[in-house]
Amino acid sequence: MTSSIYLDNAATTRLDGEVLEAMLPYMVEHYGNPSSTHKGGRHSKIAIETARKTVAQLLGAKPDSIYFTSGGTESNNTAIGAAIRDLGCNYIITSAIEHHAVLHTVEYFSRTYKLPLVYVQLTPEGEVDFKDLTLQLSLAEERGYKPLVSLMHANNEIGSLLDVKRVSDLCKDHKAIFHSDCVQTVGHYPLNLSELGVDFVSGAGHKFHGPKGVGILYVAPSIRIKPLIHGGGQERALRAGTENVYGIVGFGKALERAMACYEKESAYIRGLKTCMREKLVNTIPGIVFNGPENALYTVLSVGIPKTEDSDMLLLNLDLKGICVSGGSACSSGKGGSHVMDALNRSADYTTLRFSFSKYNTHEEVDQVIDALKTALNNH
Amino acid sequence: MTSSIYLDNAATTRLDGEVLEAMLPYMVEHYGNPSSTHKGGRHSKIAIETARKTVAQLLGAKPDSIYFTSGGTESNNTAIGAAIRDLGCNYIITSAIEHHAVLHTVEYFSRTYKLPLVYVQLTPEGEVDFKDLTLQLSLAEERGYKPLVSLMHANNEIGSLLDVKRVSDLCKDHKAIFHSDCVQTVGHYPLNLSELGVDFVSGAGHKFHGPKGVGILYVAPSIRIKPLIHGGGQERALRAGTENVYGIVGFGKALERAMACYEKESAYIRGLKTCMREKLVNTIPGIVFNGPENALYTVLSVGIPKTEDSDMLLLNLDLKGICVSGGSACSSGKGGSHVMDALNRSADYTTLRFSFSKYNTHEEVDQVIDALKTALNNH
Repeated sequence: MTSSIYLDNAATTRLDGEVLEAMLPYMVEHYGNPSSTHKGGRHSKIAIETARKTVAQLLGAKPDSIYFTSGGTESNNTAIGAAIRDLGCNYIITSAIEHHAVLHTVEYFSRTYKLPLVYVQLTPEGEVDFKDLTLQLSLAEERGYKPLVSLMHANNEIGSLLDVKRVSDLCKDHKAIFHSDCVQTVGHYPLNLSELGVDFVSGAGHKFHGPKGVGILYVAPSIRIKPLIHGGGQERALRAGTENVYGIVGFGKALERAMACYEKESAYIRGLKTCMREKLVNTIPGIVFNGPENALYTVLSVGIPKTEDSDMLLLNLDLKGICVSGGSACSSGKGGSHVMDALNRSADYTTLRFSFSKYNTHEEVDQVIDALKTALNNH
Repeated sequence: MTSSIYLDNAATTRLDGEVLEAMLPYMVEHYGNPSSTHKGGRHSKIAIETARKTVAQLLGAKPDSIYFTSGGTESNNTAIGAAIRDLGCNYIITSAIEHHAVLHTVEYFSRTYKLPLVYVQLTPEGEVDFKDLTLQLSLAEERGYKPLVSLMHANNEIGSLLDVKRVSDLCKDHKAIFHSDCVQTVGHYPLNLSELGVDFVSGAGHKFHGPKGVGILYVAPSIRIKPLIHGGGQERALRAGTENVYGIVGFGKALERAMACYEKESAYIRGLKTCMREKLVNTIPGIVFNGPENALYTVLSVGIPKTEDSDMLLLNLDLKGICVSGGSACSSGKGGSHVMDALNRSADYTTLRFSFSKYNTHEEVDQVIDALKTALNNH
């Protein structure tokens, strides 16, 4: 993507050079199967367990609580399936703006096991309405259900954030299991999962300059679940299959880097977002912002008043080498965003999601503003 | 693993340099999410679809029949689960020497859905007894069941091979669904899956000098199944989750290389195995061979008459930098091999599995023979 401006970092991020460097020895020299007991195998095994310790320590968890998976989606599926099959959850509370990796999974389980599926009310800015969440939990409890609550930490399209600790506490009060899809926040915020008191957390390496094809599932120490994928006893029998050793090493390294540079990088990215926001306001009359002002610092979702030109906006930006998304990557080209639909966003606006990383620059922001000006005045 | 002798290629293989070279651009430059519609996303999408076409063409399949997964274990789980949940299979026929990725999965489904689980009889050398398989299929049919037959193409511990076409034909006669774990043969034999007539086939990249963390599931065109992992509509809605783009590119390249060099490399590896076999016979009195003579050319499983020294054999070889396995990697250090148990191998023998690749040399064979001599005469 040379000469591109990549502002789609909520979809995926560029692999950090240091992360690649950490991965390469496990792609070239140390290729043993971690299950083999010989030197070659032990070397790989140690790499995995070192990564697990690093990740655990950085997330305020015990190494035994961290399981490596093939990505955030698998982690979500494992947690939701296990809550229902192994932990007796028979009632699902989620929100209509979850990622499809959660939404389609809870829909599947609700349909298959004939479980009530409730969508918690949201504020117009996409934040969870805690009054309604409390009500839903109470209703479930009164009716003798054991609920699974699955709510994402940060929305991938509009960046709205969840008070995870508050949901954890509520869930404990109502004997509910709480899963949080933290794919947009693991590696972007310092998290202490033990303190947050959540039962399951999903993360994905490629969202914070780590590799694709690897994720984590955090499982609280009090919880015992069965695998989604059966086979050899890898990952302490929770996730079978020869481990993606270099992926796991890369995940550990990426999280290490992200947390070491968090203060500096988050301030920088926040600055880019603020700058973009201000310049957009000055450039595009009638522009609106989706999601609350105090949202994920990496994501800026805007609504541009619809004109003849705005329909072609993504295409025009793309032609200029600017990689931006309408909604999430996963819903691209599939008839619009379920998040915007759920929030009843007016059809009078064209949605653009800018999502930033440490690799973006203020010059790029200016270039995008210029490109938008041209595209919107292209009569 | 510099200065090691690696003879554990059935556990995993060294990544081919050319494969790594093909993967690197997708780790560094072309990091877009294949679901994104912009240039960065399209580049990744094209890479995946190109790999799918390559793999399909090399396996005698249509691109639509090839799904990329996180590995052989996930592929096995997807196929077995789908056969039971989506295709109406309510009776499972397998063998006691399948890989745990199949055995533990069919055990799970048999237990959960209360389905009969039948282990087909095997010859003393670990080959399927076709008379018994026919009988079991007839019995299931008579009793009104729809069977799923899951039998591996090549056994990973002893190398015994299955006549896949013959099983396919039998399954068609008895309206059974046939899944074959081909993790030891994809990339090691030219396969024409359409001609073989099998319903599901699993393969794993890291078994033939491709990357870990990526596999394929072949699904015959006549079959419609639902995903194991729900979410974004990746892999034509059969396997959700942001695609492991470089893994998929690596899988395609590794298969391309393997098939282009098949004649030469298989002959070379077969030569190494024959040489090792002959030298072992001349070196170790009373040695026996597990598995039929006409087995997988990459695997040589031997039984060494037990002595005080033979118990420490793996350890002694390991100390000399020789990476060999007792059984499979996945069963290492877990109280012996279920394959040897199933075949009633006498406890009077210590099992060693040598598994070869194109990177092994005749000098290495000689060094291993010398090391064995020393280890077994170490009084």
